[in-house]
Amino acid sequence: MSEVTAVYSIITDSSSLEQKAEEIALGLTVGSWTNLPLLEQEQLKNHKGRVVTVKEVDEEKVSGKNVGELHIAFPAANFSKDIPAILTTTFGKLSLDGEIKLVDLKFDQDLLSHFPGPRFGIAGIREKLQVFDRPLIMSIFKGVIGRDLDYLLNQLREQALGGVDLVKDDEILFENPLTPLEKRVTEGKKVLDQVYEETGHRTLYAVNLTGRTFELRDRARKARDLGADVLLFNVFAYGLDVLQSLREDEEIALPIMAHPAVSGAFTSSEKYGLSHALLLGKLERLAGADFSLFPSPYGSVALDRDKVIAIKEELIKKTQIKSVFPVPSAGIHPGLVPLLIQDFGKDCVINAGGGVHGHPQGAQGGGKAFHQAIELVLSGTSFSEETAAFELQEAVRLWGWKDVVAK
Amino acid sequence: MSEVTAVYSIITDSSSLEQKAEEIALGLTVGSWTNLPLLEQEQLKNHKGRVVTVKEVDEEKVSGKNVGELHIAFPAANFSKDIPAILTTTFGKLSLDGEIKLVDLKFDQDLLSHFPGPRFGIAGIREKLQVFDRPLIMSIFKGVIGRDLDYLLNQLREQALGGVDLVKDDEILFENPLTPLEKRVTEGKKVLDQVYEETGHRTLYAVNLTGRTFELRDRARKARDLGADVLLFNVFAYGLDVLQSLREDEEIALPIMAHPAVSGAFTSSEKYGLSHALLLGKLERLAGADFSLFPSPYGSVALDRDKVIAIKEELIKKTQIKSVFPVPSAGIHPGLVPLLIQDFGKDCVINAGGGVHGHPQGAQGGGKAFHQAIELVLSGTSFSEETAAFELQEAVRLWGWKDVVAK
Repeated sequence: MSEVTAVYSIITDSSSLEQKAEEIALGLTVGSWTNLPLLEQEQLKNHKGRVVTVKEVDEEKVSGKNVGELHIAFPAANFSKDIPAILTTTFGKLSLDGEIKLVDLKFDQDLLSHFPGPRFGIAGIREKLQVFDRPLIMSIFKGVIGRDLDYLLNQLREQALGGVDLVKDDEILFENPLTPLEKRVTEGKKVLDQVYEETGHRTLYAVNLTGRTFELRDRARKARDLGADVLLFNVFAYGLDVLQSLREDEEIALPIMAHPAVSGAFTSSEKYGLSHALLLGKLERLAGADFSLFPSPYGSVALDRDKVIAIKEELIKKTQIKSVFPVPSAGIHPGLVPLLIQDFGKDCVINAGGGVHGHPQGAQGGGKAFHQAIELVLSGTSFSEETAAFELQEAVRLWGWKDVVAK
Repeated sequence: MSEVTAVYSIITDSSSLEQKAEEIALGLTVGSWTNLPLLEQEQLKNHKGRVVTVKEVDEEKVSGKNVGELHIAFPAANFSKDIPAILTTTFGKLSLDGEIKLVDLKFDQDLLSHFPGPRFGIAGIREKLQVFDRPLIMSIFKGVIGRDLDYLLNQLREQALGGVDLVKDDEILFENPLTPLEKRVTEGKKVLDQVYEETGHRTLYAVNLTGRTFELRDRARKARDLGADVLLFNVFAYGLDVLQSLREDEEIALPIMAHPAVSGAFTSSEKYGLSHALLLGKLERLAGADFSLFPSPYGSVALDRDKVIAIKEELIKKTQIKSVFPVPSAGIHPGLVPLLIQDFGKDCVINAGGGVHGHPQGAQGGGKAFHQAIELVLSGTSFSEETAAFELQEAVRLWGWKDVVAK
């Protein structure tokens, strides 16, 4: 019998965790059980929720409350095979029921088969870029609100000339008369083709897909027709199911870069909401993102390292679904490349805004410095004035170099 | 110049709240300011975020952190006039930036005009029901997962015979072979028409609109064609913008009942996410819900009374947009009617599950007891064995009666 198993962390006044778990398992499925006639139990047994495990966290019991982790299985017979139905079943009413957090959802093979996963994934994106042996480098437009198209195109050209693999829109750039999506795609393409002719380096541009939900598919199809490379998408301003539909649409068929905007509203609390690994890792992967952005553990807007690593694991661990590029973001500069490669390996995107644009030689210098840092680290060479090329030295003078501490 | 003003509560390590506010106002709009040439400042001045007020909360400063409330205005020129763009601008990246909560969004008249608000609202729903002078009564299907259509129809009939104004689906009832939406609507309609013929009382049935996002409009149109009265919708498993599109669709044109499933993931923390009043009050109203369900302050899954009252105020206060029926839910029984009318007045929906079905005379008795309680309270009569009718006495024997304490 197919089912999804929800894992909750809970702090409760209930007299026991077992009792609370039983209440949840019944309350979110058949309602009641022990007082039902045997015949009805027989009819409903394929719909009844099931307590799988109850783990008590002893050290916290001093508060007089029960603290623990509950694993509860919900029969797939109860819901349609979509994320809204699964979230409503496992964490609908329950999200309103005191101190409880949805830590994980364990899908069985049958349920997994209802979700597409990324269209391209890490391997497909590498194929597109013909880059197989190093982390990708991405940079972000900077200060583009209120600016005209020439300003954007100049920034795009500078970034591409630095050799970055991807450039992404600012996620707060919406449809506007100065730089509408249509112009950004068509004119941006010309700039990137020009750079390719000049340098032989191919940069992909992730354009921000925005607007009303029911217009997104048409807008994405149009973006594709105009030659867009990648779609940037603020998943959590819309919904994971919308991401899934964009992924599934054969007339769109573009890589999708999931931005974590608004996701902090779900994930930040230790007691409420959903875990980072579930939301920015597992569910984005199931729904079909090719890239998942999340706060890096290094910057000022930082996320705890263990949470970041947990997101990464969900994105890349071997399953029947393609893997997703982890994109640790914010506070990244070339001197952090040793740490990034230690924490994420080669299969990640090194994503920088200020760390590219703020370079003394501008965005061109920034992109080059990242390339040089990656080459150095992957060749096992230590950073020094002798080993590092000019742009990297300039970057390190400004931001420092963080050697990996041997474990 | 049109703008939206975001109100945040914040706990920050920043050396001052003023500085943090300035960083937010620039960081989420034009990026930088003081180092820009005057000509560029002139070009960008209509796009620059603006710190409106900074209030320090002194008593909490002992923690060594700065605690306060920030009001920051974002020019409407920066975003398209939809909820995803507004949330991404005001609380996109910022939701990931430490202990910060989006407490309110203040829309000016111009921005408000981009949102439809409810199609019917309180007055329109009252018109439909021809009930003008009392709170509405709603009951909820109970234990319907895995049950067949006859079981549902019997429950529907019992509830309608008790005289409730509305019956709503269980929000965890999705498309399923036993009780598909199509059958629920068409067969349910027959039952309710039959009850109307027998009793002269009209009950509306709110059917749960579920499935993939991009199929919802077609499914809703079909439900309407089949004769559906009201749509129940798990807004937060989808997105507020989807609610808005369902509201705006002239081929659907049905009242929409917004269920708060999953919303606890956004609202429960005091430090993170969005306030209850903003999410379940203001934004649901702007997007076009006719009913907003939220936890009552009385039951076991209770919400603080001040938060509940704040939601209610957002739903009913006089604006250019129609008002929305507040539906305080969970833990409601007839003995709470004095409290409900004190807290919500006549313009609310009294919504009960167990408080209807658990009545000694079944759902019929439960509905009648609610009617009797409302009549008693509205006529200013105290509850006693002499004044209360039979079903109400039975209910009070079971659950008690909560007289309002004179203030």
